[in-house]
Amino acid sequence: MTLPIVIETPTAVINESLARQHIRHMAGKAQRSGTRLRPHFKTHQSAAVGAWFRAEGVMAITVSSVSMARYFAAHGWDDITLAFPVNWLEIERINTLARQVRLGLLVESVETAGFLAERLAAPAQVWLKIDTGYHRTGIAWDDFERQRVLVAQIEAASQLSLAGLLTHAGHSYRVRGDISAIRAIYQETVERLNAARDALLETGQENLQISLGDTPCCSVVDDFSAVDEIRPGNFVFYDVMQVQIGACQETDIALAVACPVVAKHAADRRIVVYGGAVHLSKEQALDDTGAPYFGRVALPTPDGWSEPVPGCAVISLSQEHGIVRASEALFEQVQIGDVLMILPVHSCLAANLLRGYRTLSDEYLACGDFV
Amino acid sequence: MTLPIVIETPTAVINESLARQHIRHMAGKAQRSGTRLRPHFKTHQSAAVGAWFRAEGVMAITVSSVSMARYFAAHGWDDITLAFPVNWLEIERINTLARQVRLGLLVESVETAGFLAERLAAPAQVWLKIDTGYHRTGIAWDDFERQRVLVAQIEAASQLSLAGLLTHAGHSYRVRGDISAIRAIYQETVERLNAARDALLETGQENLQISLGDTPCCSVVDDFSAVDEIRPGNFVFYDVMQVQIGACQETDIALAVACPVVAKHAADRRIVVYGGAVHLSKEQALDDTGAPYFGRVALPTPDGWSEPVPGCAVISLSQEHGIVRASEALFEQVQIGDVLMILPVHSCLAANLLRGYRTLSDEYLACGDFV
Repeated sequence: MTLPIVIETPTAVINESLARQHIRHMAGKAQRSGTRLRPHFKTHQSAAVGAWFRAEGVMAITVSSVSMARYFAAHGWDDITLAFPVNWLEIERINTLARQVRLGLLVESVETAGFLAERLAAPAQVWLKIDTGYHRTGIAWDDFERQRVLVAQIEAASQLSLAGLLTHAGHSYRVRGDISAIRAIYQETVERLNAARDALLETGQENLQISLGDTPCCSVVDDFSAVDEIRPGNFVFYDVMQVQIGACQETDIALAVACPVVAKHAADRRIVVYGGAVHLSKEQALDDTGAPYFGRVALPTPDGWSEPVPGCAVISLSQEHGIVRASEALFEQVQIGDVLMILPVHSCLAANLLRGYRTLSDEYLACGDFV
Repeated sequence: MTLPIVIETPTAVINESLARQHIRHMAGKAQRSGTRLRPHFKTHQSAAVGAWFRAEGVMAITVSSVSMARYFAAHGWDDITLAFPVNWLEIERINTLARQVRLGLLVESVETAGFLAERLAAPAQVWLKIDTGYHRTGIAWDDFERQRVLVAQIEAASQLSLAGLLTHAGHSYRVRGDISAIRAIYQETVERLNAARDALLETGQENLQISLGDTPCCSVVDDFSAVDEIRPGNFVFYDVMQVQIGACQETDIALAVACPVVAKHAADRRIVVYGGAVHLSKEQALDDTGAPYFGRVALPTPDGWSEPVPGCAVISLSQEHGIVRASEALFEQVQIGDVLMILPVHSCLAANLLRGYRTLSDEYLACGDFV
């Protein structure tokens, strides 16, 4: 069985119809809920993939860097939330962006609110970044006093408009195969955001929106009517990590890295592929025994790739080498010069490394050229 | 204290004089040993950094992909060993290269030897890839029978010239802070390569060279006269991993990633930097308690950066976020809008992600534009 496209080097192959199906499904759920879908484009980083979202009526996006915002603004997106703490050192570029698009910024400190009040030269929407339990960054959801202080600062700055409260419930990534646990995180997140919104309402702040958006929660919840905006990103491709979490099935994964087979070692039934840390990233998952691995292994087919082959995994990565532990059947079947399809642990990082995609109809979709 | 250069986004900063010193030191040791230094250029991937090696008399290089070989060939390097199992799917590009430069290829299987005999369209040097204990790939050093079979195949192909036996003693990377253990691996590697060479000598194969080259061994050994060629790469920058192994000191690290500080959280004394998995890679080291971390933390200085601050580390990475566990002193000292210098766990992967360097005299050195 072979792919319908020619592979020479490690290549990110995407199943366009599956990715479009994921986009359509998420956009449909958001629409039926009366909720804005503002997808995170850091996963694919590609204007061409962005167009698939636009085809489903998506008009607003999330990005994680100023460089990414500039790239998508140059490709016609004009409503962009930069879901990353404001990097003061890029204020000139942020000002340029704020003049160009409807820009959303995140604020979580009096320092940054003060900085923006002084240095932001064009209007921007401001979201209070709330920590609802992930503990990466943001104001604690129940630190109402600090939220009030920041809101007052934002209100006092004429170029800043307070949009609402925004969180990333990234602790959903710690769930393993338990949909009800993911749903519980969603419920808790909504309650915490609402508690913060209610506290601000008491001080006269009306019409504040709430925004959340991690792929696990957005994948297993159907009704988003309790929130104003969702911002999932990874769901366009999914990956092995999302399967482990319980957010999707193996057959939902829409991105695989096609890797040439370059050596076989019968003694320990290992297959060496051209596909290493610079293609897959060193993001690791743990197998049932607690051993780390870096991707599942599938076979190319005329439709893309097979389900992952049981008992096989990428167990080690050097810069360009991937070492596949093969089942007996796979080892016999696969020869040097063949291609294996590696399902990455984390598709966002693999996509970032490979910088472009081939579709199964052999179209090349470039990613933006930024670090 | 500030850097002598302006930082806006995560930036690979190199201390050029330190890197040049490492190159000069390694080239000097090789020269005094009468051994060829064929440095691995996968670490820096930059023609500009390559020129620093040429300035020390280096004429031959190692790369890990055909794309990298093409890039350096285009920048005037004409003696290139491709230290990766031959990727059959790139034979057209390999043929182009073989016509253009003195190309070295690695062979470890009868399949690949047969493939080259049939499809290689221009002369190439062939090295038998020997496994001396790392067990990533290659023929077992004591499988003399298989080595003989391959040598016979290579001899029978008119366009292939047998150069010798080549290994990568990558198991030196498993050492932790023990120079004598690294030296023991070097000795054992030399003995095993010599045993294989002696066995081939008995079959009439004269003048075979032996080549090895991992940064740990090449850093702690001074006399390479027992081998014909060394191929270290990482030593040009070193990194936290090499410090852990015992191959260098913290003050030898010549590459740091300058990361803007974007948030501070007093409750758990964490500093959030703009510098994530897409800048540092998810290569991890383990601290004394067995907890993973992704970089050490230093302060910018007019000369580059300080020694790593005790008690501080990058303890978590998202795509763009880095979370620094700060000491009390560091937390007080550092403010939003400042820059921290992160010493990466693995400089090769960070360099690959950042695709270019700034020197302390504000020169920009691009990396090759290839995946």
